[in-house]
Amino acid sequence: MKTGRLEAFSDGVLAIIITIMVLELKVPHGAGLGDLAPLLPVFLSYVLSFVYLGIYWNNHHHMLHTCNRVTGSILWANLHLLFWLSLVPFVTGWMGENHFAALPSALYGGVLLMAALAYYLLQQLIIASQGPASVLRKAVGGDWKGKLSPLLYVLAILLAFRWTWAAQSLYVLVALLWLIPDRRIERALDAARAAR
Amino acid sequence: MKTGRLEAFSDGVLAIIITIMVLELKVPHGAGLGDLAPLLPVFLSYVLSFVYLGIYWNNHHHMLHTCNRVTGSILWANLHLLFWLSLVPFVTGWMGENHFAALPSALYGGVLLMAALAYYLLQQLIIASQGPASVLRKAVGGDWKGKLSPLLYVLAILLAFRWTWAAQSLYVLVALLWLIPDRRIERALDAARAAR
Amino acid sequence: MKTGRLEAFSDGVLAIIITIMVLELKVPHGAGLGDLAPLLPVFLSYVLSFVYLGIYWNNHHHMLHTCNRVTGSILWANLHLLFWLSLVPFVTGWMGENHFAALPSALYGGVLLMAALAYYLLQQLIIASQGPASVLRKAVGGDWKGKLSPLLYVLAILLAFRWTWAAQSLYVLVALLWLIPDRRIERALDAARAAR
Amino acid sequence: MKTGRLEAFSDGVLAIIITIMVLELKVPHGAGLGDLAPLLPVFLSYVLSFVYLGIYWNNHHHMLHTCNRVTGSILWANLHLLFWLSLVPFVTGWMGENHFAALPSALYGGVLLMAALAYYLLQQLIIASQGPASVLRKAVGGDWKGKLSPLLYVLAILLAFRWTWAAQSLYVLVALLWLIPDRRIERALDAARAAR
Repeated sequence: MKTGRLEAFSDGVLAIIITIMVLELKVPHGAGLGDLAPLLPVFLSYVLSFVYLGIYWNNHHHMLHTCNRVTGSILWANLHLLFWLSLVPFVTGWMGENHFAALPSALYGGVLLMAALAYYLLQQLIIASQGPASVLRKAVGGDWKGKLSPLLYVLAILLAFRWTWAAQSLYVLVALLWLIPDRRIERALDAARAAR
Repeated sequence: MKTGRLEAFSDGVLAIIITIMVLELKVPHGAGLGDLAPLLPVFLSYVLSFVYLGIYWNNHHHMLHTCNRVTGSILWANLHLLFWLSLVPFVTGWMGENHFAALPSALYGGVLLMAALAYYLLQQLIIASQGPASVLRKAVGGDWKGKLSPLLYVLAILLAFRWTWAAQSLYVLVALLWLIPDRRIERALDAARAAR
Repeated sequence: MKTGRLEAFSDGVLAIIITIMVLELKVPHGAGLGDLAPLLPVFLSYVLSFVYLGIYWNNHHHMLHTCNRVTGSILWANLHLLFWLSLVPFVTGWMGENHFAALPSALYGGVLLMAALAYYLLQQLIIASQGPASVLRKAVGGDWKGKLSPLLYVLAILLAFRWTWAAQSLYVLVALLWLIPDRRIERALDAARAAR
Repeated sequence: MKTGRLEAFSDGVLAIIITIMVLELKVPHGAGLGDLAPLLPVFLSYVLSFVYLGIYWNNHHHMLHTCNRVTGSILWANLHLLFWLSLVPFVTGWMGENHFAALPSALYGGVLLMAALAYYLLQQLIIASQGPASVLRKAVGGDWKGKLSPLLYVLAILLAFRWTWAAQSLYVLVALLWLIPDRRIERALDAARAAR
């Protein structure tokens, strides 16, 4: 299987996830400002999740770009990642509708945590498939973002039950950390090309 | 990142937005003409939004066609545009279900305004990435449509609270302005090719 | 604009229409056979519409294959066709939920009729864009299917108010007419290739 | 028609099916653990169906990869397969919401059975189109998985009315059988390449 098809399928699934999430913004029956107000938390959680999915789409694409052989385990690790991301609309809607209550906020972090671990697993499998001269390994380097994020998610899950706003802040913080597009991989690819 | 993938992802998201919008046309329970009648405003707002999304798809495609290097900021400006467009089904449904009431009609204009600004921002970033000999800059030229549309949206938002029909008329007018496909870019591309 | 992108976008929209249609099959609350039974008409109308959309996807693809220059009017004629097809899930659900009542059955035919006319318009625009030696014109030939179908739809719409089953039968008949894939275009393309 | 377009359309439909399935996980109104608990069966059935659709996507892709000529019957056999797969979200939701009751569990097996038969039919048509030296025929070989699965589905459907858990176990068992990606086809393709 070529990487192109894995990318195309992942892109399709991500495009659909990002778009059906907006269906949780249920059209209110009244036409007043008071009818719109209760939707604000749902809207804010939608913005946050939109940014997260944008980050995943972006980094996922860069990562797959280094991959030139799709093995069976890479394929299933990729589906595993898409599975957790497919739960984002559900937890986004639950957190938003319940105005960032404790348990929904913790579960939101739980899904982000599982997606981060799934992403890490996929990354390791691609590195392993590339052998000792792995371009991706060099690109990822120390991978402090990839290692810090799960820890912050765990922290946020724990804090959610006590100070929910602290959990929310951590989710925003992690998103900001990643918003800066991952130029490491691009740079390593350029270096690999130059070395040839 | 190649432009092709940015286009493919944007196309996917636009195709889904345009299609899930029809889900706001809720199937009525009765089978009579009287059951269908209340859906007419929803249907009309659906037609309007369908045309708007068609225009965005068309012009977005022509614009991206001139872009040969996708930077991180172009990528996020594109996601920013898709974000505002993803809200179109929501405001379409809200405006339609409330029979073009004042606030929903104003919010509809608000989302169109944000999308127009996001489109303008994306356009400026692509022009900047192309340097002084930018093909897109030449193509866009004075860009009177791009500058007039946000003004008309602001006017429509203000008018919505007094004469809602005036806001609707302006939305239809702007759509008609843009319905004429943007041949400027095509012409500039042809000129650039001929000059080579 | 290349045909490839028009095809890809149309395919995306058609894939989504065909799939969200299944959302009209609402999951019943009970787990007995009696809970499933009322869904039978919805299911049957789903099967019919699935076949129709499959036919459109198939023939649309063959037609676009002959098109080598996408003009602004072809592009909008294509969006116009997609617009009418996007209403298929709505009329399918309405007809199914009301157990093939008169008005929903007539409206179903109305949407099919508009889609057929939109398809015909797109076909004529592509033929016109190809000039006197149009491959598509030769392929389409007398186009008896394309001319007969709208007439049968009109007949079905009229009959729906008197004998609804007659309208249903005509919809099934037209689907069967088209189910036989349109080899005319393929043959004409082969002939054009051989002549070169 | 080229295989590429058939693949792209099938991928699109599969990506949408896999993603809209998550919409059956309805966001609960309360924010407590007690509000989440009733969703567990829906979640479990979602996991099972996600794996099944992943398997279909994977094997379908490998199979189409061997196909170099898309005939009309292959095209419709493919749509026929997509039709049965499009019903997976419905039966998944019905089985999950009714906590794996007898009839929904049997119908789940019924849809899996029809999809398996549709897959088999498509496979036979591709083999027939390839003539006596069919790469796919060699790849599929004895096809014990393809022959065993329908039998296990029939068994599960029968058992569902007596011991529902036995039906569930069989569904999980068949999924595990197929989870091991189908390397037979890849191997046969390599052999065919080496022989050249």
